[in-house]
Amino acid sequence: MHKINKTTQIELDRVQATIKKELSSEKIIQEIYEYIFNAEGKKTRALISLLASKSKNVKPAIRVNLASIIELLHTATLVHDDVVDESERRRGTKSVNQVWSNSYSVLMGDFIYSKAFILMVKLNISPILDELAKATNDIAKGEIIQLELFENRESIKLKDLLKVSYLKTGRLFEASAKTGAMLGNIPANEIKCFGLLGKALGIAFQIQDDLLDYEAFKLDTGKPSLKDFKEGKITFPLYFAMQNVGFKDKEFLLKYLGDDHISKTHQAKIYKLIQSEETQRATKTLLKKYIDEANRHLESLKHHPCYKEMLNLITFSTIRKI
Amino acid sequence: MHKINKTTQIELDRVQATIKKELSSEKIIQEIYEYIFNAEGKKTRALISLLASKSKNVKPAIRVNLASIIELLHTATLVHDDVVDESERRRGTKSVNQVWSNSYSVLMGDFIYSKAFILMVKLNISPILDELAKATNDIAKGEIIQLELFENRESIKLKDLLKVSYLKTGRLFEASAKTGAMLGNIPANEIKCFGLLGKALGIAFQIQDDLLDYEAFKLDTGKPSLKDFKEGKITFPLYFAMQNVGFKDKEFLLKYLGDDHISKTHQAKIYKLIQSEETQRATKTLLKKYIDEANRHLESLKHHPCYKEMLNLITFSTIRKI
Repeated sequence: MHKINKTTQIELDRVQATIKKELSSEKIIQEIYEYIFNAEGKKTRALISLLASKSKNVKPAIRVNLASIIELLHTATLVHDDVVDESERRRGTKSVNQVWSNSYSVLMGDFIYSKAFILMVKLNISPILDELAKATNDIAKGEIIQLELFENRESIKLKDLLKVSYLKTGRLFEASAKTGAMLGNIPANEIKCFGLLGKALGIAFQIQDDLLDYEAFKLDTGKPSLKDFKEGKITFPLYFAMQNVGFKDKEFLLKYLGDDHISKTHQAKIYKLIQSEETQRATKTLLKKYIDEANRHLESLKHHPCYKEMLNLITFSTIRKI
Repeated sequence: MHKINKTTQIELDRVQATIKKELSSEKIIQEIYEYIFNAEGKKTRALISLLASKSKNVKPAIRVNLASIIELLHTATLVHDDVVDESERRRGTKSVNQVWSNSYSVLMGDFIYSKAFILMVKLNISPILDELAKATNDIAKGEIIQLELFENRESIKLKDLLKVSYLKTGRLFEASAKTGAMLGNIPANEIKCFGLLGKALGIAFQIQDDLLDYEAFKLDTGKPSLKDFKEGKITFPLYFAMQNVGFKDKEFLLKYLGDDHISKTHQAKIYKLIQSEETQRATKTLLKKYIDEANRHLESLKHHPCYKEMLNLITFSTIRKI
């Protein structure tokens, strides 16, 4: 975990407390909640929002509320993703749909979504509501497009993958930075800058996530290894591998893509293909492109109170192992 | 179908057109949309909202927008219900999750939900946003409570069934009437009256729905018969039947409850138990109680431009066959 300023860590803890309070109305919901949030996530989106909203003119409580809303929205998408991916594990622990069935996952996701909307309405800042409602819609759109893309795995293009990464991940990063900045009541061009920074950082975050999914084969990240591959997902490293390998290896990859029971030997071969110099270089070049873009936008925000912390976060994004 | 005033029918058609327009951004979403909305629903909630918002002071376009938002919210819950119920059929046609898998149902539901929220934000009336966000949250809560209730089928109480019916169905009827009335800018006590009317009508609507699910065994409503029973749902008629029948018949009902492959002979026996005089009387007495309540609240709204149409709708609710 990268080092977080003490004040920011206190605010992140308050985000956690707010979420807990909001989801404690019914016993069964509380139980499911405990299950989801005991496995605490990194809260990267909440953190981005807290940083972008840093300002003497905004009450910390309001900033924590916005960050909590964003974390709730993100959690709702995670819970629904479990049904979509038919994931058995999430954040290193069993997922909600494995313990309580798909039905609970769908409904719990809806419960969390609408809770986020209730809190948004309470916040009562129209442009922030607008941005978050649109981001939520774009996330669903991105996932639907992804499902369709994966039906024609062989013909996927880099621009399609980038579009999906933006919608699925970049979009909420963008909204987190942008709405945080809106709350801080800074000039429009700076709000725009925060949005672009968030978008680039989100796509970079997704590329690093994709890399880590394969790295998990070697490292012990608590994540199961090759999860994306077993779920049939074409991520950036796999995309580049398929561009770089020969015909036979491509056939091999396509044969096992989406297979949940791949032998250790075959997993090792898949891992090796992904680890090839060309594939790693191509993926990391793409990652660097988006990190550079995020940093470039941050340069226009040097005077902003979050500058140093945001720089840390961006830097950490390419070296993180979880 | 009950007779709807010509102006109201034109407005309902505009609701349909608005929804179509809003869901036409991506090809795949449009395809799924066509699938869902080709099987047009009754749009009862949209209708209630249109009636409650009737006023010379409100532009028809705004009223149609609110009704469209409500219909979108309702549709999102239907699409997600398909996953929850593992329903094979919805509105007489194959459900989204049968044609496109659970994944598409979850994501399409999220897409429709968030689209509704985008339109709400555009409407920009804070108390209406608040009411609809809370109603959406209560619907999810109701469904979660229902799942838990059905795990202890034998000990279900009438008050539990009523609570779930309120949250699952009554709550959105209530919000439709209430937000419609809010839009009409009428006195607070009348808005409250509309809310209570909607709530009672929604619960009545659910009881009639429960009755029709068994009626479908005899009638040809296009619906598959005993669907609720096969899905393991304890609805009002089944609850009363289990109170009224002897020990052996209760055992029989509990044995086949949730079984998807019940023989015609056994279905006939289940139907007969539900049709018993006591069970029918108990269910219809409960239905009448809520219809009477809805009518009582309507009596305070005699001067309202929707009075006659609302009276028709309430009356129709107990005689409808679909």
